[in-house]
Amino acid sequence: MKCSVYIATSVDGFIARKDGGVDWLHSAGNPEAEMGDQADMGFADFMASVDCMVMGRKCMEMISNMDLTPEQWPYGDTRIIVLSNTLKEAPKNVADKVEMYSGDLNTLVGKLETEGYQHAYIDGGTTIQAFINLGLIAEMTITRAPVLLGEGIALFGKINRDIKLEQTQAMAFANDFIQEKFVVNYR
Amino acid sequence: MKCSVYIATSVDGFIARKDGGVDWLHSAGNPEAEMGDQADMGFADFMASVDCMVMGRKCMEMISNMDLTPEQWPYGDTRIIVLSNTLKEAPKNVADKVEMYSGDLNTLVGKLETEGYQHAYIDGGTTIQAFINLGLIAEMTITRAPVLLGEGIALFGKINRDIKLEQTQAMAFANDFIQEKFVVNYR
Repeated sequence: MKCSVYIATSVDGFIARKDGGVDWLHSAGNPEAEMGDQADMGFADFMASVDCMVMGRKCMEMISNMDLTPEQWPYGDTRIIVLSNTLKEAPKNVADKVEMYSGDLNTLVGKLETEGYQHAYIDGGTTIQAFINLGLIAEMTITRAPVLLGEGIALFGKINRDIKLEQTQAMAFANDFIQEKFVVNYR
Repeated sequence: MKCSVYIATSVDGFIARKDGGVDWLHSAGNPEAEMGDQADMGFADFMASVDCMVMGRKCMEMISNMDLTPEQWPYGDTRIIVLSNTLKEAPKNVADKVEMYSGDLNTLVGKLETEGYQHAYIDGGTTIQAFINLGLIAEMTITRAPVLLGEGIALFGKINRDIKLEQTQAMAFANDFIQEKFVVNYR
């Protein structure tokens, strides 16, 4: 099963402020830019390419706190697995959308593979770092909001060794966001 | 006087390993890629656009340690000012290439401006951070080597407040490096 990252960061590499805030993500760039058919910066196409999601607890809690209506729910009916060693049940407002998992990630990936899943969307900083360190991430799409925050929660953390990226693609959108794509080479 | 940054980082935002090493910069990407007239990733064009440089002491020491021949010297006869509060004299092998400066950065910029300089190349992590925090950087070109290091010396550090970037440009080179350009908006 292929595992991919699709995430937004600031230009200095933060996915959230220290307190988890992502206000900067919504105010960054030029909101009045004419985006044409790129308004979602490729998100719908990416969602259409995955058949399951694995996200961290904090990521899920951030989504739960948004208290989205069914119309606002961005993940369709894609199966979502939330990783947590502490939380046994999901918050009520997302309980019918997600299932909790505690345990080994290679086991989880193997299980999903056995069930026929082919492409997982991996989300949340800690979760992405864990998957990277296990050599499980095949591709990464990083959308950089045109802002420097100076501090916050970094997308990337300590890794066991240098990780080579290949087949890079990069583009700037009309709203001044930048999108980078990489294939991860663990060799 | 316009001040610009032109610097290479890893995809996770480091300009050097913890020990200052930049070996990864030379081994990253595909060295066999056909780069055509982009072999220097725009460095010569950028150098041609500046008429002076301001760099930090560590940056200068790294260059000094390379012990470049006159043919290898990458900065032509561009005037180079090295910032240091501790070092009064430059190492012998670069002593005729650089001059030392200790003191206020706004004063330095004003002095260079009075002398007719129009575009300064600001180099070195600490120096770039200081210039950013003083609101002195107009443009940034960041060339990201396709590698994750996990830790090291970060390009960006703590800033006084969010800094908005505009007029972004992004491209991927054939060697898998990515180049991003930003205009800094301090408003």
